[in-house]
Amino acid sequence: MPDPGRRLITGFSNPTVKALRALREKKHRKAAGTFLAEGLRLLTDALECGHVPQVLVLASGRDPHPLIDRLEHAVFAAGGEVIETSADILGKITGKDNPQAVAGVYDEFDTSLAALDRAAAPIWLVAQALRDPGNLGTMLRTGDAVGAGGLILIDDCADPFSVEAVRASMGAVFTQHIAQARWEEFLPWLRGGEGQLVAASLRDAVPYRGAPYAAPCFILVGNESRGLPEQYEAACDLRVTMPMRGRADSLNAAVAGAVLAYEVLDSLEG
Amino acid sequence: MPDPGRRLITGFSNPTVKALRALREKKHRKAAGTFLAEGLRLLTDALECGHVPQVLVLASGRDPHPLIDRLEHAVFAAGGEVIETSADILGKITGKDNPQAVAGVYDEFDTSLAALDRAAAPIWLVAQALRDPGNLGTMLRTGDAVGAGGLILIDDCADPFSVEAVRASMGAVFTQHIAQARWEEFLPWLRGGEGQLVAASLRDAVPYRGAPYAAPCFILVGNESRGLPEQYEAACDLRVTMPMRGRADSLNAAVAGAVLAYEVLDSLEG
Repeated sequence: MPDPGRRLITGFSNPTVKALRALREKKHRKAAGTFLAEGLRLLTDALECGHVPQVLVLASGRDPHPLIDRLEHAVFAAGGEVIETSADILGKITGKDNPQAVAGVYDEFDTSLAALDRAAAPIWLVAQALRDPGNLGTMLRTGDAVGAGGLILIDDCADPFSVEAVRASMGAVFTQHIAQARWEEFLPWLRGGEGQLVAASLRDAVPYRGAPYAAPCFILVGNESRGLPEQYEAACDLRVTMPMRGRADSLNAAVAGAVLAYEVLDSLEG
Repeated sequence: MPDPGRRLITGFSNPTVKALRALREKKHRKAAGTFLAEGLRLLTDALECGHVPQVLVLASGRDPHPLIDRLEHAVFAAGGEVIETSADILGKITGKDNPQAVAGVYDEFDTSLAALDRAAAPIWLVAQALRDPGNLGTMLRTGDAVGAGGLILIDDCADPFSVEAVRASMGAVFTQHIAQARWEEFLPWLRGGEGQLVAASLRDAVPYRGAPYAAPCFILVGNESRGLPEQYEAACDLRVTMPMRGRADSLNAAVAGAVLAYEVLDSLEG
């Protein structure tokens, strides 16, 4: 028997299951204004950051856990819904063979530039036309680690609310601010206040190590295949280059952002 | 009309197409002792490193290109085969919607520890139970960038010859040595010569910045979810920690390896 208050769902064809599964597609996320996150640790982190899911989905038959109780109470207190279902159905919803025992449906956040307070953090990550949701989530995770304020997504990037991006972020989707803007909006916004725009570049660049970084430092990383457009690099205050000792002339985008972000962190704090 | 010497394949059900597609599965790669790589730049890099494909697959109807001519001549000179087929069929083979115009079938390399010359490079990357082929390929790419000698895969890792790993390596699969070993083999091998084993760790660790790194430095990164087993960390010569300013207590495995590798590079060269 499920707990009182929980709704038990046993069928794959249940309309709620279908609606939850649909959140794996961007158009359904945008229509609903919600996204899926999974995993007890991640949902607990989200709760501690003030994010309560509209809907909490629990796998049947798992042992009780005080963190699950806490999540459940928070959801009920906020007027949300708790669904109990089989591990198989939960796996179907999240698209994972070995599903986590818990998933949640969250409201998407405000991703306007206007909502960012640039003075709130010394480092901001900026990605241009980043297409891989795994890279995007990894950048959010790195941003959390270096104490960045958030990730600004320029031009057509992967959706930060996709299951893959949320998963790769390891919860940082809830701790990092996320903004989405075209370059034509971003640059005037940036120049409307303090902020140093830094890019990893091969053109007219100084060594990344010991470069004159200044807070708030906006670290700009380009598209996985094409890198940054030349005029975007030209608009930067500082272009830095990392050693490339092998045949390749570039790093994975999320790796380049991380190596640079750790250097900036050391420079600003050192 | 295809060039003389090229074999034209027009059917999806052609047995050669099926055999090439099968190389996306590990068991078929192991049975054949070969793997697939795609992309003109990657195949050209491979050629310059002395790797000629057994089979070169070209998409029909693309413009002539001197680098393709060069590849084709090298394949014929080595007694290999050149296949021309449609872009659709090539996409079916490599599993990509927008396939590259060229792919190659390569012999898998010797991945024994015995084949490594540790004195050949100041840095070596070591991954334990790394499960994500994208992370694995990204580590190869980072290794190339920092001038590492190669990547040593400990315990059950993703297959470095999977299409995903090869793709993420951006060609570094051909420039970096790859070894595969159990921990029980690796540790005696390491201790049989010079080498400092370094891990990113939260236990009994010193700051990663300015730590006493020494060449050849073996940088050990653990599994994506579980990190390194405690006894593996205990066996390290140096445990270092990176700043974690947010809620998370770890970085993506490939990111952690890269931040550490760039620090080691600077330390050894500085």
